[in-house]
Formats: sequence, C-alpha cells, structure tokens
Amino acid sequence: MAEVSHLEAVLGQVEDHLELSIARLSELLRIESISTDPAYRSECRRAADWLSTELTGIGFDASVRPTEGHPMVVAHWAKAANENGGAVADAGGPRNLPHVLFYGHYDVQPPDPLELWKTPPFEPQLLDGPQGKMIVARGASDDKGQLMTFIEACRAWIAVTGGLPVNVSVLLEGEEECGSPSLDAFLAENTEELARDVALVCDTSMWDPETPAITTMLRGMVYEEVTVKAASRDLHSGHYGGPARNPIRVLSRALAALHDETGHVMIPGFYDDVPEMPDEVKQQWKSLGFDAIGFLSAIGLSVPAGETERSVLEQIWSRPSCDVNGIIGGYTGEGAKTVIPAEATAKVSFRLVGDQNPEKITESFRAFIRDRLPADCEVSFKSFAGNAAIALSTDSPYLERAQAALADEFGRPAALIGAGGSIPVVGDFKRKLGMESLLIGFALDEDQIHSPNEKYNVKSFRHGIRSWARVLDRLAA
Amino acid sequence: MAEVSHLEAVLGQVEDHLELSIARLSELLRIESISTDPAYRSECRRAADWLSTELTGIGFDASVRPTEGHPMVVAHWAKAANENGGAVADAGGPRNLPHVLFYGHYDVQPPDPLELWKTPPFEPQLLDGPQGKMIVARGASDDKGQLMTFIEACRAWIAVTGGLPVNVSVLLEGEEECGSPSLDAFLAENTEELARDVALVCDTSMWDPETPAITTMLRGMVYEEVTVKAASRDLHSGHYGGPARNPIRVLSRALAALHDETGHVMIPGFYDDVPEMPDEVKQQWKSLGFDAIGFLSAIGLSVPAGETERSVLEQIWSRPSCDVNGIIGGYTGEGAKTVIPAEATAKVSFRLVGDQNPEKITESFRAFIRDRLPADCEVSFKSFAGNAAIALSTDSPYLERAQAALADEFGRPAALIGAGGSIPVVGDFKRKLGMESLLIGFALDEDQIHSPNEKYNVKSFRHGIRSWARVLDRLAA
Repeated sequence: MAEVSHLEAVLGQVEDHLELSIARLSELLRIESISTDPAYRSECRRAADWLSTELTGIGFDASVRPTEGHPMVVAHWAKAANENGGAVADAGGPRNLPHVLFYGHYDVQPPDPLELWKTPPFEPQLLDGPQGKMIVARGASDDKGQLMTFIEACRAWIAVTGGLPVNVSVLLEGEEECGSPSLDAFLAENTEELARDVALVCDTSMWDPETPAITTMLRGMVYEEVTVKAASRDLHSGHYGGPARNPIRVLSRALAALHDETGHVMIPGFYDDVPEMPDEVKQQWKSLGFDAIGFLSAIGLSVPAGETERSVLEQIWSRPSCDVNGIIGGYTGEGAKTVIPAEATAKVSFRLVGDQNPEKITESFRAFIRDRLPADCEVSFKSFAGNAAIALSTDSPYLERAQAALADEFGRPAALIGAGGSIPVVGDFKRKLGMESLLIGFALDEDQIHSPNEKYNVKSFRHGIRSWARVLDRLAA
Repeated sequence: MAEVSHLEAVLGQVEDHLELSIARLSELLRIESISTDPAYRSECRRAADWLSTELTGIGFDASVRPTEGHPMVVAHWAKAANENGGAVADAGGPRNLPHVLFYGHYDVQPPDPLELWKTPPFEPQLLDGPQGKMIVARGASDDKGQLMTFIEACRAWIAVTGGLPVNVSVLLEGEEECGSPSLDAFLAENTEELARDVALVCDTSMWDPETPAITTMLRGMVYEEVTVKAASRDLHSGHYGGPARNPIRVLSRALAALHDETGHVMIPGFYDDVPEMPDEVKQQWKSLGFDAIGFLSAIGLSVPAGETERSVLEQIWSRPSCDVNGIIGGYTGEGAKTVIPAEATAKVSFRLVGDQNPEKITESFRAFIRDRLPADCEVSFKSFAGNAAIALSTDSPYLERAQAALADEFGRPAALIGAGGSIPVVGDFKRKLGMESLLIGFALDEDQIHSPNEKYNVKSFRHGIRSWARVLDRLAA
C-alpha cells in the first residue's frame, strides 16, 4: 500500500508542476543542437552541459563525456543503489531491484527548409493544436520532448520520495541524427558501466493519440550518397548539348531503374533475406484496425506508393523500402543557365527488414549503379549509415510490467507494433551489451519530426511523464 | 587599283598600331560590366560611355541610349554616307553602297568561380599561350575582344582614307548575357534607324585556329523549369518510406524517360519538324575533317552521348537535343537526412533545329511529364526561353563577298558552319527588321568563354581586325 500511495503522490507532483516541466523543455529546445552540421558543434556541447546540469540538480551523478564527435551525457542514480546496499555499478541490491538504462538523444535534425516554419524552429511556442496545446520547435518531439518525459518522471519521484523505485542509469547521445558515429566505441569502452538489466528507449510513437504502444520491430537502414561525374568541367549546353554526357541524366536514369511499376526494388538479391511475417502477427496487425486512408490523407496523399500487393502497415513495418532523400546537380538558382554540369549527386537510403545485411545491400546498390554507367562516367559513394533491422523479445517480464503500467495510464492495452524507422542503438545494446530494450514513446505520426513545424502535444508530454513514473514503479514490483 | 592600294595601306596601318589596339581593348576589359548583377550597373554604364567616346573619337556620330536596363550604344558613320551623297538613314548613295549594321555586346558573364582564375579577371594580362600571346580577362573573347576587332578595323580605314568603304552603323548591347530583356522594345522603337541591308554579328567562332568560319545555322532553345509536388510536407523516410510518394523518384523517372538508349528524345512528335540536311551540306561538313575525338577529349570525354547514328557535328549543328540543366530536391547538405521531400525541381532545356516550334515543343514536353505523373502528384512549369532555330541564306551576295574577304586573309576558304547555341538577336533582326545577318567571329572553342581564365589570342584579334578591314572593302566592290 505504501508504494501505491507513493505513486499517486508522484503523479500528483507531475500534475502540479507540469508548467515548470514545459518551461525546462523549452529551455532545452532553444539550444540549436544540430549534430550533422559542424557549425553547431558548440550548441551540441551546450545541450549536453545543460542536461548534465539538470540531472546533477535532481541528484544524479552526471557527467559530460567526450567522444570523437559530440559528447555523451552519462548519469547514475547513486542514492537508490546505496539505499539498497549496492554499488552503482551493481545491478540491484538486497531486494534484487532491476537496474535500467534510459537512452535518449539531445541532437536534432537541421530545421531547413526554414521558410516553411510558421514560427522560428529554435524559439519554442505553446500553440493550440487539434489535441489541445502543443509545443512547437525543432526537437520538440524528436527527441528532446521525449527524453524529458523520463527526466521529469525521475524528478517527481525524487521530489516526493527522495529516491527512485529502481536503479537508474541514463545515456543521452548527441549524434543520433547523423548516424551515431561515436556510439560503437563509447559502448565498447564503457560496457561495465552501461550494461544493465534492460534499456528504456524513448524515441518511438504511440499507436494513436489514445492508444499507447511498445515497439518490438524496427527497420534497419543503409544510407548512401552517390556522385556521378562526366566532363572535366561544366559545359555550355549550346556548344555541347547532344554529344556531351550529362551526369544528371545518367543519375536520373539509374535512380529511375531502382523500382519497377509495382513498387518493387529492382536490385538483384534485394529481397533474399526478407522473411514473410507469420500469420499470427499479420492477424494481430489486422486487428489494430489501421486507417490507411487516414494515415495517407494526413500528409496529403491518397494512394499507397509502395509494393502494390502489400498493406500500408506491411509496407512500413515488415517490408524494405528504398528512397531518394536528396538530389542536386547543375544550376538550381533563379532563372535559366544553359549548363551541362560536370557532376550530380543523390542521397539514397534503404529501410531494411528481417535478415537483410547492410553491407550486402550497400554492395548490391553500388553494383546496380555501376552497371548503369555509360562511357566517360565515374561514380563515387559515401556511406552514412548501415544497421540491420531489429526484432525484440515479446515475452520478457519487463515488457509485461511496462504493458501493465501503460494500461494503467491510458485505460487500454498497449499495442505491440513495428516501426518503419531504425533506432540503431537498440541493435548496439543487444549486440555489444547483451541488453534488450523496451521501446516506449509518446510521439504521434502527426508530430512532423524532421519536418518544418515539428511539435509535441502537451498531452503526449504529460502522459509520457506519468507513464514513466508508472513504469519505474511497476519495474520495482 | 586605287581601292586595292587603300586596303593594303589599311592593313599596314593595322599592323603598325596593333599594340595600341591591344591597349585600348585592355582599357575596356578593365571595366567590370557584368550585366546580370545589379551591383555592376554603373560599370555597365561606364563601358557604354567608353565605347561611345571611342566611336565619337574616330568620327562616328555615337550616343549612349537608355533602356529599361543597361543602355545601348548606337553609332553611325556620317561621313561615308555624305561622301556618297546620301543621308545617314539611307542605305547607300549614288554608288549604291550597302549600309551595314554591326552588332556586338559590351556586357560580360560574372567571373565566378573567382578562385579558379590564375590572374584577376578584370586585370587583363598578355600571357604566352599555345598559339602565341593571348589576352586573358573576362570578356577578352566574349564579346569585348570580338567587337573591338570591328571598331579597330574602322579606325584603320578612317586613319588611312578619311572614311569607310561602305555605310556603317553600330549597335552595341549591354544585356546579351542576361537574356536581352530590353532588345525587343529598342528594336521596335528604332526600326528606321537600325534596319540596314545586312547585319554583321561578331559573337561566333572560327572553325579552327587556321580556318575562318561563317555561321549560317543556329539552334533555337526552349528552357523549362518543372516542379513535382506530392505530400503536403517533408516526411521521415522511416515512418513513411514505402507508402509515401517520393517526388524525386517521380521526377527522375520522368526525366529518364525523355531519352531512349540510342539518345533519341522520346517526346511524341519531337522530330516532326526536324529536316534532314541536304547531302551536299553533309558532304561539306564531312570535308571539314572535324576531329570529334579531340573535341570530346578537351572536355574529358571520349564517346559521343547523342543520337548514336549521327556524327558529332550533326549532333551539335543540325539535330535537336534535350538536357537537364539543373535538379534539386530533398536534403542536399553534408551528411544524411532521412527525408522524403514534398517536392523536387528540374530545369530542362531543348536545343531546336529546322522548323521545330518552341511553343509546340514546350506543350509536348509538358504533356510528356504530365503523362508520367502517378497518383497524388502535381506538377507546375515555368518557361524561361523560347526561340526557334535560325538558318541564314547561303546564297546572298554579302555572304559571297565576306567569304572572299576571309579567304584573302587566311589563304583558305571559310567554312560554312552551324552552331549549337542560340544568338537570339539574329532572329530578332530577321523578324523585326527584315535583315539577314552575317555571323563572322574569331573566337576559338578553347577560349573558355563563360569560364575562368577566358582569353582571346592576339592572333585572333589581329586576324579579326584585318578580316573586317577586308570585309568592308569587299562589300563596297
């Protein structure tokens, strides 16, 4: 009974101080921690410092830890461990309390195209949205808003009880949006400190605004940049148009060949390691009653563009995809310039499922492009990401407890879902630290993450904080 | 005999004062008359003033004439007309001397990329080149060096004989490099003053460093910008990759469909108004001994990319072409961004020949793109240019006389050639003033016009002045 009343007091504390929680999130959102652009290096450092200071302020043993790129923030809840008689590095004490590692990332995507933002991306605003108030800013949802749900839940527990119900460590990354180049080495060097019983990862979405979700399948990713070069310099299209090889045309042709008319990817062997989902999983997904038309109409579309014989949920969760994420070549300013450029570049990414191997897909893609180069063309490639798809256990005791906590908060069971995007850290935790992850998040598809006018509903933020307060409580049971 | 000795004295005068001619050209090259950039407006005005002063100095009735944009310089040789008993506006007098209009342009392309210039673009240098000394500066060839060949030829004639062998008017434009926005209105308002027997246009190239050329065919142009839009906003490729329509893919696919494997343009009806060259013309071109391999290797290429069954000369001179001059969409910065963009844009241009109608080609292109739009896509277009190809008479008496003059100067016949690029003023002269043009120029393909380190060989400059001296003489015969 004592613990139940603790939780209720903690939830009351969350309600009473929600405005302060939003104010703290807004402070973090004002920091322009764009990890992919070197010009914002000091802003990334500032975000790490800010988080470390916050965590220290509520009683964590927190520090900013340098890497080759942007720093990590690592924090441990020292008192909980001591109260239970264990050292921080030990998972659990006499009561065998689990020790969790919370993961989030403080870096954000670039805000461009800037002209499409209705309010400045790094000046957070509290605006009216279809689901009540929403916090509008780059990172409001992905992932500053989400990671703050956990920190604020810890803050409430500590304020009310002086401690946390389980042992908690925190790892906040600053390079998630640019492929986590420093993560591998950091996990390898700090395995003892970071390998805990289970990871809590808050970078995913709810099923819908009323239904919580735990994500158990994540697509992997390969991200390639391809540059085709032809002539030794830009050419005048009047003097050379006809005989001169045009790299934009060569690149367009190769990109156009990546898919057939039915949305299949035409790279040889691409589907070799793509499993068919078991009937029971397909059945469970069907029971979710997914509104494919609503999903598409929310983004101004009406007809699914993926493999024609697959449902939209399959297209996102259990089927691989290929997209051109960017392309540039020649003259792109106002007006006309009659140039045949010397080169053209595209960014091409693949979402992977099942056992698709990132290295193999990368090589097959490169071969596919090379096979389509006519005379006088050279091609070069850069890799920005390569991680396999992930399927998490659906029968762990931690998952069960988290499901119960979410059901308490939302009054309905959490959906077990797939996710189209990759969260590479989950694979790293599994492979490098032998640790499963619980992917619980409160974002919504409509949050416009990576797009102009990104937002996080106050409702999501509030439910998120309350849910984590409940999850911590359940994990101690 | 008197006239022959006049010409010989004039040619001697040219030789004796070549250094002074180069010094005057250098003065003009120091003026930064970049027409496309409003920051250089006063420099354009300064170039017009300089030219008007020079022409007045040698006896022309010259003036700077305002337009909505940069001014025109118009000059008339008053004395020749008077000597022959006619008014300036009358073509010819008792001896029925022809009245020519010389056209050139004093504006230049922007010099960027500046870092690729070995010497400052507006500080002309006399450097050693493969064909002897060369004048290096922006505009040295296009078109200040070329227009000065005519002015210096006039200067020599006047210095030696006190007059010119034919009636001469001069029109120097300041907006050729930015699409000649004021030309139409200026020609319409000054038709009486500018409509002469024939135009002499000095903005083209020689066949090779030893062989003069008269250009009789110019390709026309259609220049379109096409934007494809799909979703109402940029999307995260993890969440939407598969079902979301990707406008870069749609655009790439449509652009890729513009050509088949043999380099043919696939737009229905595209070749309807493309004439086959008469065998005699093909034979003459063949006799030129064009070095296709050398032409391509100079720009780092080795295999012609145009219609496979056509020679390189045909591909440039008598066959239409289609090129993508620019493309942009999605994320094009450093690193990776997993976006499916809301739109993508390309600039596509066509070089036209024969009777291809710019409006018809524009409409066919737009229909071709529209036919390739899948569900949920919108397309919009902008037109930046549309002018038909030009074929000049090859049997005019002026052409014959100019050929004879060039043969006298170079010791070999002038090649009658095509040019891949358009010189819109030639079409305007024809349509608006009912006047044919003689396109005679002394530039070389290697002159790097529009590129860093533009140059004009002193040999080209000298031959150019001497050639115009001879052409003026022949036209009076």
